[in-house]
Amino acid sequence: MRRVYFDNAATTRLLPEVREAMLPYFEEHFGNPSCLHDWGDAARQAIEEARVQVAALVGAESEEIIFTSSGTESNNFAIKGIALAQQSKGKHIVLSAIEHFSVLHSARTLEKMGFELTLVPVDKFGVVDPDDVKKSLRKDTVLVSIMFANGEVGTIEPIKEIARVTKEVSIPFHTDAIAAAGALPVNVKELGVDALSLTANQFYGPKGAGALYVRRGVRIMPLLDGGVQEGGRRAGTEDIPAIVGLGKAAELARINMKSRVMQLTPLRDRLINELPAGIDHIIATGHPTNRLPGNASFCIRFIEGESMLMLLNSQGIAVSSGSACTSRALKASHVLIAMGVSHEIAQGSILCSLGIDNTREDVDYFMETLPPIVDRLRQMSPLYTKFTKAKGGK
Amino acid sequence: MRRVYFDNAATTRLLPEVREAMLPYFEEHFGNPSCLHDWGDAARQAIEEARVQVAALVGAESEEIIFTSSGTESNNFAIKGIALAQQSKGKHIVLSAIEHFSVLHSARTLEKMGFELTLVPVDKFGVVDPDDVKKSLRKDTVLVSIMFANGEVGTIEPIKEIARVTKEVSIPFHTDAIAAAGALPVNVKELGVDALSLTANQFYGPKGAGALYVRRGVRIMPLLDGGVQEGGRRAGTEDIPAIVGLGKAAELARINMKSRVMQLTPLRDRLINELPAGIDHIIATGHPTNRLPGNASFCIRFIEGESMLMLLNSQGIAVSSGSACTSRALKASHVLIAMGVSHEIAQGSILCSLGIDNTREDVDYFMETLPPIVDRLRQMSPLYTKFTKAKGGK
Repeated sequence: MRRVYFDNAATTRLLPEVREAMLPYFEEHFGNPSCLHDWGDAARQAIEEARVQVAALVGAESEEIIFTSSGTESNNFAIKGIALAQQSKGKHIVLSAIEHFSVLHSARTLEKMGFELTLVPVDKFGVVDPDDVKKSLRKDTVLVSIMFANGEVGTIEPIKEIARVTKEVSIPFHTDAIAAAGALPVNVKELGVDALSLTANQFYGPKGAGALYVRRGVRIMPLLDGGVQEGGRRAGTEDIPAIVGLGKAAELARINMKSRVMQLTPLRDRLINELPAGIDHIIATGHPTNRLPGNASFCIRFIEGESMLMLLNSQGIAVSSGSACTSRALKASHVLIAMGVSHEIAQGSILCSLGIDNTREDVDYFMETLPPIVDRLRQMSPLYTKFTKAKGGK
Repeated sequence: MRRVYFDNAATTRLLPEVREAMLPYFEEHFGNPSCLHDWGDAARQAIEEARVQVAALVGAESEEIIFTSSGTESNNFAIKGIALAQQSKGKHIVLSAIEHFSVLHSARTLEKMGFELTLVPVDKFGVVDPDDVKKSLRKDTVLVSIMFANGEVGTIEPIKEIARVTKEVSIPFHTDAIAAAGALPVNVKELGVDALSLTANQFYGPKGAGALYVRRGVRIMPLLDGGVQEGGRRAGTEDIPAIVGLGKAAELARINMKSRVMQLTPLRDRLINELPAGIDHIIATGHPTNRLPGNASFCIRFIEGESMLMLLNSQGIAVSSGSACTSRALKASHVLIAMGVSHEIAQGSILCSLGIDNTREDVDYFMETLPPIVDRLRQMSPLYTKFTKAKGGK
């Protein structure tokens, strides 16, 4: 049976070149970079090289990059760290309604500590209007966080325009670029953001390595207290192999970005344009064109997403119904709901996130395999039976 | 030149068996465990197996183990998470004066949020008196945290006796067992602790993988908000290779614990007993016998520790002057100061932390190499010149 992995938004396969870069740091150069001997030196040099590589990916200075253990940690650090560092100025935070739970729930934790939260709406494509951000700002707003691109529906946000709004009033602006960094050109200086989250396992690097860009001069409180690692901003013995892997993956993403985008975009567009021809009552979600190169997302009516995933899995295909971080929560996606999709339709969400291993043949196989599965599930759906009866049968 | 790594307290070399266990999870089984397809299943099974292995090392139930990215994260999570979950009952925390900075500074952060802190003293060997813990308890005490063993001076604390004190008044008791777990028998049920931190890179596992034991029924607030990983207690895509490595290292530590202790203890004791014969004005620090099997620590008077480290490094020997997490802070160790060592003497601290790669020959080489280095440094020390003149020359 063919095996097709269309769940690169959940995590990507580590590249062999990245693994090779990491391996020497497990046994040969295993030292702790805080140590003042040769073993420490080798580890320290490796981190600083990785920092330069990550900085180059997003157009930052290397001292503006703080390594973390994951995208989730980067987002928690950004939201809690910046808001708490500014709390003498006010306790109001602005987010979009479609942020990842690591942003949204971090802000909810701050709410319990007396912060207030405004969620800016999105349109039917999932796009935030910079004017809505502007309207949401208050005198006591201390942080705005709007994601660069949504991993579930692919939509890219007008970050540069939002940064212009926040800069006018000097409010720190963080963007969660976890789904975008490494996949698309992202330049912190051109965007004008104050903080940006990214993670290696979204671009063929290892799990266990994320980073937070914090513009020089932006105050942030540590999330992890302890030693003086990362300039005193993030304590804990550094995970050198993972950091080296993040650096290498960042370098490869920068070098190969154009070719990757050119490989993925036509595969994505074929799915978006041709899948609806084979299936009734399907809508493509997210922005039709301004979206992540590997992201094709849909809602299929009269289908329960989990069952569809299971049947696709039995045919060797891995897709998801949305964010991996919420897949076991079994609720309709807050992203789709915010875009105005009904709960009923949101139940049938399916996300194909393509990666550099994917081919035209993978897309062919998926497009052959899905329609009979949809038919089969609809035969068992009381809602569908009711609907077709109302329509006079199908 | 011989290369001798005596800095296993900073971090240990990854075992080849652990690396082999990790490798399949980089490329072959690279899935995200939250996903509902085969790729996710393989990753999920791997985590749960590692959880059983870690639980077995410390005598816990597997569902009482939460994976983290480091020992520092485990300690931050324990201190902040338990204190904040109990804050409706009170805002007083009790620590020992010799806790690792990841415990101490976490508590300092809570102080800024209105918590009060009591630091229990230690005796000249670095031992906490359980009666002192008892005396420090108040009606509003919501957390006690005393380390299992101190990584800088090796001393093992009377954890079982302290647990008896806290249990009488039902106050949650956390122990930082980062230096001890994997090196010595540690059993959470026998000890009676409510929470315990450990980390893989202290026992020949990878960096990037720690764990926190939290006894069933103990409330803890997440440090990382977001997805529902780790039962909703620690969000973020799991670092599967690192977790698998932690599990394997825990299994090997459990199986080989006796033989490792029997290998390290005589090497340690030779250093403690014989090094003072070759060097004047040297004191062994920490408890003479009740100490970590691989830990031999000293203070050498009229010596500046950093210079000694550098010269030893030039002879191929890696040692440290204390905790790796503070080595770049360049201050006298708070541990030594709490034990009553003067600032002047604490400047010359040296920590030999032995590991399973070390041999008798390593110890021989170190004992030959150190005395001439000490002599050389003392020739350049104004304090020493003054001292010898006062004594009538040497």
